[in-house]
Amino acid sequence: MTRIDHPESLKRLAVQLRRLPGIGPRGAERIALWLLGGKDRTRSSELASAMLQAAESVRPCPECGFLTDTAQCAICADETRASGPLCVVEEATDILPLERTGAFRGRYHALGGRLAPLDHVGPEDLRIPGLLNRCRTTPAPSEVILALSADVEGEATAHYLAELLHAEFPRLPITRIAQGLPAGGGLESADELTLSRALSGRTQMN
Amino acid sequence: MTRIDHPESLKRLAVQLRRLPGIGPRGAERIALWLLGGKDRTRSSELASAMLQAAESVRPCPECGFLTDTAQCAICADETRASGPLCVVEEATDILPLERTGAFRGRYHALGGRLAPLDHVGPEDLRIPGLLNRCRTTPAPSEVILALSADVEGEATAHYLAELLHAEFPRLPITRIAQGLPAGGGLESADELTLSRALSGRTQMN
Repeated sequence: MTRIDHPESLKRLAVQLRRLPGIGPRGAERIALWLLGGKDRTRSSELASAMLQAAESVRPCPECGFLTDTAQCAICADETRASGPLCVVEEATDILPLERTGAFRGRYHALGGRLAPLDHVGPEDLRIPGLLNRCRTTPAPSEVILALSADVEGEATAHYLAELLHAEFPRLPITRIAQGLPAGGGLESADELTLSRALSGRTQMN
Repeated sequence: MTRIDHPESLKRLAVQLRRLPGIGPRGAERIALWLLGGKDRTRSSELASAMLQAAESVRPCPECGFLTDTAQCAICADETRASGPLCVVEEATDILPLERTGAFRGRYHALGGRLAPLDHVGPEDLRIPGLLNRCRTTPAPSEVILALSADVEGEATAHYLAELLHAEFPRLPITRIAQGLPAGGGLESADELTLSRALSGRTQMN
């Protein structure tokens, strides 16, 4: 008795789909079957062509690391943006969420990761030379804002960068984004570390 | 001030990804960014090639409609399977779930859909001639089991097929899979229709 299963190429497709973030084995099978369905069976080719075209054309901006399909990204190309404050983020994908807040109109610099000794990510793996170069060029940034994760590796990266920048540019203000209660979050649902940081980061109201 | 957004080709990829079952706008963006990431940037091309290869090689079995990448599907090619009972399902994707129960060792026939007048799906859109042909050939099936959905359209399709088959093959037994409580389901969580069908479909225990 043969055990009945999907054809091999369908199973290989499901294996590839399982690598996608947020897709489990069930979802991968469901998507694979959907891709092979449809009246004119063009679903696979349409998605594949969009993927290949995006992979071909989207590149990190050589200046800031943001994703772009032109020589310079839309942020770096925007002359109306303040060249004063420079916001340092871990990943290029952190830029749009910040941008959508509308609270920042300066420029960005994506490091392409953060220091993670356990994963063998050291300073040489990050876009730190580019950051230093941007601080050296005129007009120099008026402030470097470190918008890194609020976890151990984000902290370590922030401290490393702050020391490095302060050594070369002693009069450049270096700031970090605040840690505290998330919007809509009550005290009862906040963990101790968040609460202690919210306390120590308190701001005067009067 | 220009509104900053992802590059066009990345947005087009996200639009394609949103068509996938179970993927929302957030998930599509996350997957698109993941596909463009990775150290050697081969994620897009690997997935695209698996998709194109599967779309190229996987076809419905000409006999039963199950998905196959060979001339005849693994079920139709299996000489050890009973040629007696024939299980009619709506979609080819319904076959594996039934197969995984291990409760059925006969053959299948996938209709490729079900009667849905509102979606302009009529009998001529389903693989009904193939089903009739299989009932005409020797050895004829000993029984036709209708394993269709327990909803209005599944019911309508089952009644239509039962009448059609009975008219041409009056001595062929035609059965339907049972409707009732799902395994592990309590009475308090079952809706009225399920309960009424479970009641009318009760079986004797002694």
